[in-house]
Order: sequence, then structure tokens, then C-alpha cells
Amino acid sequence: MTLRLGVIGTGMIGQDHIRRITQVLHGGEISAVNDANYAVAKQVAQDLPDAAVFDSGQQLIESNLVDAVIVTSWGPTHEEFVLASMAAGKPVFCEKPLATTAEACRRIVDAEVVTGRRLVQVGFMRRYDAAYRALKAVIASGEIGAPLIYYSGHRNPEVPGTYTRDMAIVDTAVHDVDVVRWLLDEELVAIRVMPAKSNRLGKGLQDPLLMIGETESGVLVNIETSVNIRYGYDIRGEVVGETGTASLAGRNLVEVRANGRHAGRVPAGWRERFTSAFDTELQEWIDTIASGSPPTGPSSWDGYAATVVCDAGVLAMHSDERVAVVLGEKPALYGTDGYESNGVMR
Amino acid sequence: MTLRLGVIGTGMIGQDHIRRITQVLHGGEISAVNDANYAVAKQVAQDLPDAAVFDSGQQLIESNLVDAVIVTSWGPTHEEFVLASMAAGKPVFCEKPLATTAEACRRIVDAEVVTGRRLVQVGFMRRYDAAYRALKAVIASGEIGAPLIYYSGHRNPEVPGTYTRDMAIVDTAVHDVDVVRWLLDEELVAIRVMPAKSNRLGKGLQDPLLMIGETESGVLVNIETSVNIRYGYDIRGEVVGETGTASLAGRNLVEVRANGRHAGRVPAGWRERFTSAFDTELQEWIDTIASGSPPTGPSSWDGYAATVVCDAGVLAMHSDERVAVVLGEKPALYGTDGYESNGVMR
Amino acid sequence: MTLRLGVIGTGMIGQDHIRRITQVLHGGEISAVNDANYAVAKQVAQDLPDAAVFDSGQQLIESNLVDAVIVTSWGPTHEEFVLASMAAGKPVFCEKPLATTAEACRRIVDAEVVTGRRLVQVGFMRRYDAAYRALKAVIASGEIGAPLIYYSGHRNPEVPGTYTRDMAIVDTAVHDVDVVRWLLDEELVAIRVMPAKSNRLGKGLQDPLLMIGETESGVLVNIETSVNIRYGYDIRGEVVGETGTASLAGRNLVEVRANGRHAGRVPAGWRERFTSAFDTELQEWIDTIASGSPPTGPSSWDGYAATVVCDAGVLAMHSDERVAVVLGEKPALYGTDGYESNGVMR
Amino acid sequence: MTLRLGVIGTGMIGQDHIRRITQVLHGGEISAVNDANYAVAKQVAQDLPDAAVFDSGQQLIESNLVDAVIVTSWGPTHEEFVLASMAAGKPVFCEKPLATTAEACRRIVDAEVVTGRRLVQVGFMRRYDAAYRALKAVIASGEIGAPLIYYSGHRNPEVPGTYTRDMAIVDTAVHDVDVVRWLLDEELVAIRVMPAKSNRLGKGLQDPLLMIGETESGVLVNIETSVNIRYGYDIRGEVVGETGTASLAGRNLVEVRANGRHAGRVPAGWRERFTSAFDTELQEWIDTIASGSPPTGPSSWDGYAATVVCDAGVLAMHSDERVAVVLGEKPALYGTDGYESNGVMR
Repeated sequence: MTLRLGVIGTGMIGQDHIRRITQVLHGGEISAVNDANYAVAKQVAQDLPDAAVFDSGQQLIESNLVDAVIVTSWGPTHEEFVLASMAAGKPVFCEKPLATTAEACRRIVDAEVVTGRRLVQVGFMRRYDAAYRALKAVIASGEIGAPLIYYSGHRNPEVPGTYTRDMAIVDTAVHDVDVVRWLLDEELVAIRVMPAKSNRLGKGLQDPLLMIGETESGVLVNIETSVNIRYGYDIRGEVVGETGTASLAGRNLVEVRANGRHAGRVPAGWRERFTSAFDTELQEWIDTIASGSPPTGPSSWDGYAATVVCDAGVLAMHSDERVAVVLGEKPALYGTDGYESNGVMR
Repeated sequence: MTLRLGVIGTGMIGQDHIRRITQVLHGGEISAVNDANYAVAKQVAQDLPDAAVFDSGQQLIESNLVDAVIVTSWGPTHEEFVLASMAAGKPVFCEKPLATTAEACRRIVDAEVVTGRRLVQVGFMRRYDAAYRALKAVIASGEIGAPLIYYSGHRNPEVPGTYTRDMAIVDTAVHDVDVVRWLLDEELVAIRVMPAKSNRLGKGLQDPLLMIGETESGVLVNIETSVNIRYGYDIRGEVVGETGTASLAGRNLVEVRANGRHAGRVPAGWRERFTSAFDTELQEWIDTIASGSPPTGPSSWDGYAATVVCDAGVLAMHSDERVAVVLGEKPALYGTDGYESNGVMR
Repeated sequence: MTLRLGVIGTGMIGQDHIRRITQVLHGGEISAVNDANYAVAKQVAQDLPDAAVFDSGQQLIESNLVDAVIVTSWGPTHEEFVLASMAAGKPVFCEKPLATTAEACRRIVDAEVVTGRRLVQVGFMRRYDAAYRALKAVIASGEIGAPLIYYSGHRNPEVPGTYTRDMAIVDTAVHDVDVVRWLLDEELVAIRVMPAKSNRLGKGLQDPLLMIGETESGVLVNIETSVNIRYGYDIRGEVVGETGTASLAGRNLVEVRANGRHAGRVPAGWRERFTSAFDTELQEWIDTIASGSPPTGPSSWDGYAATVVCDAGVLAMHSDERVAVVLGEKPALYGTDGYESNGVMR
Repeated sequence: MTLRLGVIGTGMIGQDHIRRITQVLHGGEISAVNDANYAVAKQVAQDLPDAAVFDSGQQLIESNLVDAVIVTSWGPTHEEFVLASMAAGKPVFCEKPLATTAEACRRIVDAEVVTGRRLVQVGFMRRYDAAYRALKAVIASGEIGAPLIYYSGHRNPEVPGTYTRDMAIVDTAVHDVDVVRWLLDEELVAIRVMPAKSNRLGKGLQDPLLMIGETESGVLVNIETSVNIRYGYDIRGEVVGETGTASLAGRNLVEVRANGRHAGRVPAGWRERFTSAFDTELQEWIDTIASGSPPTGPSSWDGYAATVVCDAGVLAMHSDERVAVVLGEKPALYGTDGYESNGVMR
């Protein structure tokens, strides 16, 4: 059975997922599209003969042409569409952020808890990257003992002029926050921001930004974002355990020896680095939803928790204080995290 | 439009391709199956509600349920089914070998030339591996100058008791032969086999086997097969050029430091190493065929040439002589090799 | 001319330097030894036919058999012997620490300033390690832009039961502190200690310990000591610059592929890791002193500064506060750092 | 006791060894020099106040100022000086080649056998390189099973116009030949040369040159020399064993990430690559000779065997035939190879 998907928001990332579903993945089709700019949706639909174009996200969600919803619209609209999808009883895959404020995320969590079943998955694609999965498997194997420190390096060649100081946390480090919670399988409880010298290539930003988080069990989490570092898109991760360490390895395809050097390529951007992760993320979501199961990926709770941590990070940056992360109790609905079903041992 | 595919031969590799097409790839469906053992085909079809089971490969090929054919049956039957597919005017993807003798391969080439259009693609999946493609791109870039030597290491942890001495060439090294022809974009003209000491773990075999080939332009090709080397499935490739070298890189996902060592994983087998290559191979084939274009991957000529080279290798092994590779002239039909369409610069 | 060296303190490290000078290096000889335990000195001297055994360090220093002094005695005695050597007008190489308190170090600095010429070198051997020198050269080359963050990982397989909580800073991290000052060519101005979860293998210690330092220009310095990590002695260093990064590379001699892994060795201990650095350190010191020049390596000021930083670190650990590093003004005597003469561009 | 050394031949390599002995190593001094060009010897002696300048090598050898002789003169004179040193009963370190013909080498072997004690060591420095020693230790450990193939890559950025076709074997590959004999601890019995396409950067040479050797036990030895490859001086070695492989690792000090690449340095030339090996080679020789023991490094027999193998290689290159290596029986004097005393298990 082919899963009929409605896409709300047909901008860059929406089009990328549509391409993925219509050209690369198995089991899904685009049956409906909508965009705040109707003309854009209409344009995108020209290559999708079976897709209806809707005037509003709400109509798309309610349409019986749509089995499940993909929300790739502008961040501030996410809450509305996710809540509407839940109200319609339809599974919804929402690109990050789940919503733009912790309160909005919390409303989604609460609504889902009332519904009594998981319908929401958030687009934290790193959990689907083969290297991160291998890193989690090493932790689970016990080979390096209990984790004590996690270093997360998030290096981006450049950001546009619209990128603001807080975005280093809420837009960039949010991925590191999610991956840390997932790798270590526990919550962050506090966060600090260290006052770093700034890269002259990113005027007005605190770049690099060094955040030190603490988990429930006391693991230190050291997140660096460097968003104007020019040389490439370089994602680093190292777990320091009691008896060993494990790191994300380099991603060379070939090694070239020329001009006095042996060298390999660093990815140019996030698309090159995480294309396979995006593919796996959506394929596993389609397979799960099509089978009638609840989603097993990042939940509303994960979206909420990442937002609360990032809010604490922003406060820490502005206040230069250690800021506690206050999540409240995790509802039982999220008690058995679904991601083990991805084949990664806990 | 979904491409309706008929699969002849539902053994291990056939089932693997069926799984790929029905669970991973986009744009194809299994509309028909056949196997020499009808019960096996019937069994496999239980998970394929839309697939008809045919008594014979010939019937499957002629059925109007089938747009294109995948031949994954026993090697000696390949010729018959490939010729029949061509006679029916249907594109056919044939797992290697194209046929079990050079004469049979030649008959397929001749038949295709008479047909006047390319219908056949042979399953040399290494051309679809990201690392080999990057290696070919480095050669094309001129960064290392003209190639002078190519080292190809093909190391396999173990082979079954049914594996014979000649299979090191016709079944194992055949992949290296194809990849060399493709990487260097020229034919091999002669081959020798060096008398190696044998690994005690592979009784009765010449293991490792070292073959030295020469290309038209004089590049030396050094192919090593080690098929009982226990430690893993390790595919090595290094181009020595005039001003530099390029090698397939290691394939670590994570690096672990424990017990006095830093270490990464070597793939356990060909399936782990080449899963993505198989996916890309079939996806590109489906996309091409569905668009109405002729196949762009390894052609009948490539299947024929690899077989002739391997036959020369077997003769070289038994005679301990340098044996010339005699291919005859390449028909114009194969003159513009299709693989450039894979995005790799020549 | 052979430099006649007197060694005060013939314990483990003293014997190691004696071995080095009498068996490996050129241009020095051991003309005198002394130890708090006379019998030990006598025993060591049995293999040194030309070495006199002195009852006291003071006598050794004053002896006309001695051109220069090596102090490898118990830390609390360093101040006395260094001051005495200066009073005698003799160059003195003092193993770290220069003295056990900042005040004592300062007295040495002041005495040397009064003397008006540099006579003291402190045993921070990392500055003589080929990899650290290459790292400094990359910074100097401008290839990665101005440094913004420096990560220093100091991982030790285990420490003895006598190792105390503060020693992670004053005995272990002191090397990182020195190397950071030298690599970045500026002072640290403040330091914090992050509250880490502790490795169960090092009871009673704060292990790992994460210190965050800030330099004059605002570079963040992230020093991790893990002193019970079992897997090996692993020294990590990474400079994050404005446009690139540079890291100490792995130190493999051979790569072994066996049992499903490709692996290399991690050094077992500091002796294995830094043997060449110790050799270079003493050879360059002997060459410099023998030529009549003042020492060009780590100075009294460097020994003093490292101690002040570590004291601030200890205070930061106990108070959980950011602690300022107050050095006072650097005397002109130390204004032109000598280490450029080691061939490393500034 | 300081070993008084006489150096015959004060050209580039002679001066390099003099610098080593007078500035880096321990336990030797230059007491005498000689050169075919007296003015050169005189010039070199100006920095050696304790060195006498001799009119002839013969006089130097016989002088009672000289305990042991270092022969770094023009190759064709080696035989004479080595034989004279033996006649004088003095240990002699002779740079490669031991002599320029197999017959001359054989005369030295025979003379040494008559003498009844080993006096000669040949300058094959690779045996003293830490990475080669680690490679030999891996073989000895049994971790990769019995060796079956050895790949030796000898890549040089460029050679002068005086470099002839045969020199790729007798001057370049001779190092590979020696290291193979030592690593595998057995003799080569035959050799072939493969007809390679030539690098346009080395006109008139067979470059690269691929030699296939066979050892007594049947190990295949694959030696590639590429002497105009521009990118650097790159020494490769890989042992393929029954259950694993071991390779010389890269020699990075630092890894730099910049401009879309992560990269490390390839040595620029043999001096950079093997400086430490030369140091160790001469230090161990000085220590051994000074202790009154016979030399433990490469023997006359090793010098003879390497020459016979290379002669066979030259014949193979010119004849395009497999050429047998005929050494004759190894005299008992060389039966217990000395290099185990270097701490490498057999």
C-alpha cells in the first residue's frame, strides 16, 4: 500500500522531501500540497500529476486524499498544523523546530498525551545517520565504559546575513542537543555558555559558541558551533568513556596524494553530509506509518525538550550564568523511547 | 509510471533485488516471477500480491505484464533469457556473468548489434559505488596525471568448499577486471598470473592469486585476490599516476580507542560493502528504463570483454604464460559508453 | 667541548636524563651527582666513572667540576637548588615544577631578573615534540586563520593511589597550560573548572577534569585531563581557527588489519609518547649552553606563569567560580621568547 | 670510551655522517678523514679539530688514530677500502653498495669468512626505521599469519639527469630488496620485471618499474619504483598474511582541515623520511663496536645478496625473462643473523 502524503510548505526543504519521496524512496506518494504562497505550490505540483493543490494547510490535513502530513512550512506555523493533524487523527512529520517556543511545543505534547497515542515525529535527522548510529552502538556495547564527556563540534562554512546571534543555539546547536539526548539517553539539566573570541568572518555573532551542558547523571556535554569557518561542513563527535573513547570517523571516499600532501575531502554542506540520513529518516517513517504503527523517531517530547534546552542556552548566553533546564515530568506516552526499534541496542 | 519488472531466478540474489525494489527503491514493482524451482518462485510470490508466477522464463519474458526483465537465475541459463528478452524487445538487467563462455557472450553482443539498440545491462555493481566513482573523478580531474599502474585488492574472508581454483578469476577477479576497464576507460590486452604461495586456509586453491594485466596504452594492472583471508571483506584500489596517487579510503563510521588501540571496522562481507552500490545500480537502471532510454550501465560488450579477459587469465594460470586478450573490434553500438551519464566526467 | 653536568636528584627521572646524556645525546657528560639519599647517588655513580658524588646539592653546584646543573630532585627542593645555581652563575635545567608555589617561582624570576641574564630552563618537554612544533608552525603559517579555541586532551591510563585531587591540575594539566601559552604565544587570564561526573576507576578524584581557560586575546582553552582511562596515554590537541583547524595526528607506525578491524597502537605511557621530545629538549639545551648562549627553552617566567595558572585552577575547582589569573607584568628579560630559535616561526 | 672513527669519502653522505657523529650521537668522534679530493677533506676537517687528514684511505685505515672505519667514498672504491679495513682487523661501516659488482661483494664475503669474524656492516638504514621494525614485529607476532605477498612501493619525487635506467634497480630498488630479505628472513630466488608504461616526467627510464620477486618459501614480492612522481617521497609497505595484513602507516604529525580538505604532509625526500633511521643505525653500530662485539646490522652477505638480486633484476629487465637468483650457500659466519640483537623477535 502506498502512503498518500500531503506536504504543507513547498519551499526548499519541502521540495527536497518531495523529490526524495517521488524519486528515491519506496512506499509513499505526494497526494496533496499547500504553501502560504499558492503560486509556489501550484508550480511544484506541475511535476506531481497525482497531487491536489490546497488553499490552506487545514484543508489539506482534513482531505481524505491524505493519509499522513509532512509539515515543512515556516517555523511559526508548525504548531497550528501539527495540532490540526493530531486533531484529524493523522500522523504528522514536522521538520524542526516542532514549534518556535517551548510553550507551543508543550501544547503539542499535552495535546498528544490527551490523544493517547503518538502521532508526531520531529525532523532530527542525525539519529538516522549511520555514523551516529554506530557511535550509539559503541556506547551500548560497553566497550568504552560509561560516558563521562561528550564533545560535539558543529562547523559550518558560512551563514547568511539574516543569521542572528541566538540562531547559533536555537537553529544550529539544537541538532547537537537532540543527538546528545539520544546518544546518552538522558536529559540535560543545566547549561552554560563560555565567552569566546569571535571569528571576524561572522560579524555580530558569538562565533564560535561554546556551550557546556550537564546531564542528569553528570555527563558533561561540550557543544561547539562554528558557523563561519569556511573550510567545510564538519560534524565532530567524541564520547569520552571510563575506559576508552569513540569518535565519528572522517568520511573520505578516496585519499589523494599530490603536491606534498595526502588529503581527503570535507563535506561542503549539510546536504552532502546528511543526504543519506534524510533518506533513511523518511523511509523509516513511511514504513512505520504505512504499517499502522506509531512513529518511532524523535517525538513531540524530544522537540519540546530540545527547545527548552536551547531556550536555557540563550538565557545563559545573555546572562553569562549557569541556567537550569526545567522540563517537568516526561509523560508516560514517551516513556519507552521508540528509537530502539531502529535496531540500535540501548 | 511504475516499471513492471519480471524476475527470472528467485534465489538469494533474486530475492535481494526483489526486496530492494519493493522496499527501498522508487519506481519499480515486481509484476512477475519465475524460477527453475517453481515452488521457490511460488513461495517468494506470497509476499508480492501483484506478481504472477510463470512456469518458464520464456513465458515471463513474453508476458504483457512485464516491461523489463531481471535475470538472476543460474549462470548457464543467462544467455537464453537475455537473448529471449532482446527478441521480445524488452530491456534486461542480467546479473554477472552475462554468460558462462566468451562465445555465448559474443552471441549476445552480436544479437544486440543486429537489434540495433542497447537493451542489456550487466550487474557489475562496483561502477555504482560512491568511492569508485570518486576515484574515477580524481583520474578525470588530472590531479594525479595519467595513470601508470592500478592496484586492485580483492580480499574475502572465506569461500565455500565448492569454490574452485578457476573461480578466483572468473567469479572473483571478474569484478576487478570490469572496474579496471571502466576506471581506465580502455581494454586489457594481455594477462599473466604469478605463482604465489598458497594460504593454508584455502586448500587446493591458488590463494592469493596475483594477476598482472596490461592495457592498450600500457598501464599495468595488478589484481590480487585473497579469498580466505579471514579478517574481513576488504576492497582496495590504488591508481599510481604520473604526479600523484589516489586510493579508495577506509570506510570507518566510528573510531574506537580502547585496550591500547585505535581501531575501526573492516566490512564483514560483500553485502555490507556494496549494499549502497546495488541500490544505486538498480535505481539508476529503473529510472533510465522507465524514461524510455537505453541502459547506461555495463553493456553486453562489457560482459563479453570481462569474460574474455578472465578466460585469458585462466589460460595464463594453467600455462604460466603471458596470454593475449583478443576481443575483436568493438561494435559502434558500444562506442559511446553510457556510464558518463552517471555524472562521472570522462 | 664537552659540557660537564652535575645532576641533583638521581631518582627515576634523574637516572633517565643521565642515561640520555651518557648513551644517546652528544656533547654532555655527567661530572657530578648528588641525591638526598647518598647511597642512591653512590649506586648511580658506579656506572659513571668520571662522576664525583657530592654530599650536598650546594657543594655540587659550587664545584668547579660542574659547568651546568640539572635539578631532578624532589619538587620542594627545586627553589633552593635553582637559586643556588644562579648565585653560582651556572645555567640550570630544572624539571617541572620550577618550584611548588607561585611565590617560590616568583622569587626565582626576581632573582634571575636581578642577575640580568637568563640561566634557568624548565622541563616542559612538549615544546620539543615534533608534532607540537608542527602544530605551532601551522598556526604561524596563517593557513587556519587566527586561533579561536584550543582543545587539549590529556589522557593517562592510570595514576597511583598517592595521586590527589589537585594533582590533576598542578601535576598533569600543568603541561597543557604550558603548551597552550607557548602555542598561542599569550597568557591565560582566567580559568574555570566544570563539574564533571567521575570515572569510577579513580576513586576520590575529579576525573575527568574539564578546565576552561581564557587567554588575553579571548581564545578559549578547553583542557581535559582523564587520568584513569585505561586504554592508553593519549595526548590530543586541536586548534580551531577562523578558517580551518589543525590537530595533532595519530602516531601509528603500522596499521594492522585483523579480526574484522584495522587498528593502530596508542602509546602506553608518557615515556613512549615523549621520549624523542625529552631527547631533543636536552640536546638543544646542551648545545645552547655549550655555545655560551643563554637557554632558549621554557624560562623561569614560564615556570612561574604555569604555576599561577594552576593555582587559579585549583581555586576554581574548590570554589566553582571563574578565577582570574594574576601574573603581574612580565619582566623585559623574558620579553623576547627564546623558543623561536628552535626553528619555529612565530 | 669514545670510538675513534676514520671517514673515507667526505662528500655529501660522508659529511652527513660526520655531522651526526659530532652533533647528534653519543660515543664516537671523528679522528681521521680522507677524500679522493684532498682539498675537500681538508675543508671538512676545519670543523673537526681532533681529526687528522690522510693522503690515502689505506693510510687512514692503518693509522693507530682509527678504531673503526666508515666508508662513504665513491662506490667503485668500496671494495678496496672494505678489504683493507678487514686486513687491518678493523670494523668497517660501508655505505651501500658494499661493492659495485656481485663478484666484488663475493670477494669481501670470502675474505671475511677467512678472517673468521664479522667486521663489515652495510648501510641499509631501513632496518633501523621504527615503522619497519614495527612491521617486522607484527609478522613475528603471528597476528596476521604467515606472509604470502609483500608490496613495496618506493616513490621518489624526481631523479637527476644522470640517473640511468638500471639505477632504478641497483640504486633504488636495492633498498626494497634488502628490507624484504630482512622482513621475511629468507632469500629471493627469482625475479621478473613487468613492462610498464613510462612516466613522461622521466624520459628514457622505465619508470615506474614493477619487479616481481619470489622467495624461497614462495612469498611473492611486488616492488614498485616510481622515481619521478613529483608529489613526495613515499615509502609504502604492506604484508599480506594468511589471516590479516600489516602496512607501514602514514607519517603525519598534524592534520590540517582547510579549503575543503583534511590533509597531512608526505615527506619531501629520503633525508626527511629516514633521518631517524640513519641516527639509530649509526648509534647502534657505535655502541656495538665500542663494546667490542661484532656488528649486528646488515652484513657482507646481505650486501652481496642484494647485489646478486639486483643483477638478476637488471637481466630480467633487459631480457623480459624470469631470472633465477643464484647466491650459493650462505657461510656459517652469517648463519645467526645479528639483527635480532636489535630487539626484534625473529
